[in-house]
Amino acid sequence: MLTVHHLGKSQSERIVWLCEELGIAYDLKKYDRDPVTILAPPELLALNPIGQAPVIEDGGTVLAESGAIVEYIIAKHGDGWLAYGPSHPDYARYLYWFHFVNGTLQPTFGRLMVARRSGAAADHPVMQAAEGRIARALSWVDKRLGEAPYLAGQDLTAADIMAVFTLSTMRYFTPVDYAPYPNIRAYLARIAARPAYQRAMAKGDPGMALLLD
Amino acid sequence: MLTVHHLGKSQSERIVWLCEELGIAYDLKKYDRDPVTILAPPELLALNPIGQAPVIEDGGTVLAESGAIVEYIIAKHGDGWLAYGPSHPDYARYLYWFHFVNGTLQPTFGRLMVARRSGAAADHPVMQAAEGRIARALSWVDKRLGEAPYLAGQDLTAADIMAVFTLSTMRYFTPVDYAPYPNIRAYLARIAARPAYQRAMAKGDPGMALLLD
Repeated sequence: MLTVHHLGKSQSERIVWLCEELGIAYDLKKYDRDPVTILAPPELLALNPIGQAPVIEDGGTVLAESGAIVEYIIAKHGDGWLAYGPSHPDYARYLYWFHFVNGTLQPTFGRLMVARRSGAAADHPVMQAAEGRIARALSWVDKRLGEAPYLAGQDLTAADIMAVFTLSTMRYFTPVDYAPYPNIRAYLARIAARPAYQRAMAKGDPGMALLLD
Repeated sequence: MLTVHHLGKSQSERIVWLCEELGIAYDLKKYDRDPVTILAPPELLALNPIGQAPVIEDGGTVLAESGAIVEYIIAKHGDGWLAYGPSHPDYARYLYWFHFVNGTLQPTFGRLMVARRSGAAADHPVMQAAEGRIARALSWVDKRLGEAPYLAGQDLTAADIMAVFTLSTMRYFTPVDYAPYPNIRAYLARIAARPAYQRAMAKGDPGMALLLD
């Protein structure tokens, strides 16, 4: 049995949602962030010493890092569903958007959060660079979502599984106004309407509202 | 013919090195960062509007994002070399370290760079968090490299292709002392001795010394 160690309000929501989309059986173990430090609790550190979430266990395998877990679960338990192979016409687009999330979009939110928390003034070069980067990255995603309903093309793929946490939950950590990005807002509304996404949020992060506005 | 658009001192060194390790033919087009803004030049923006490097062209396909390009080249031109499939005993380790680089290690360097450039004092919580994160991440890599010569195990894989830029060239952008990490230093020395790595650096970033100390 696959065990998913889920930390609330973290990248691990990707894994719960993936399992629900694939319709596979899994045992969900939930953890809350420390209310003072906002870090992972000691039980998760015991599984993964640098405190990353999510972590899965599958037989004797313990695996962290959401991108790795998504690939692993799709290959080992999902018969390759939600991923495109080299012969698929949208293979390159799939790979691009899958890797764009943790390679560019997520770190762009992270840098923005650090710049804002540093106390630098709005006209400080670090703040201007961070705000410029987030606007460029979100405009780029918004443009893509004006061309196709999902990042890789016509259907939901693991690229979307990676992207939605960053586009939604990251705004709890550092707010971004989505008024200029109508295609991102429509996309998040499409995702929020999916039964598998609703089940994942109900099980993993109950009470959490998707930030559409 | 595969074309690699290479921006000096950027994640695109991964792609030049990958092609050299795989021994595949490619056409290298080199670009320098703007000396004032340190950003990608307009010619690269024309290929990829958000200014990411590397970018490759392969037939009609234009692809950015180094993680995506590494997967694409290995699948389309490398017969699967340097990647482990689901049946390999080190499959999970391979996936973990491949995704750890851009999912955790590279953004940790990025946040450290932003925190330092913000002007926050050394005892500011943002600085303490950033310095703590880089120490934890590098200790984690150092521990792994004390167990095995390469990140996934006994042999060089695409996980190393991803990691070495972050462990070496990122220190041009924000210095980190590697004295506490002897296994990382030994690893970088092993990489620097590889003929394919030496060819890649000679072609892509001539004059650049690997930061071993």
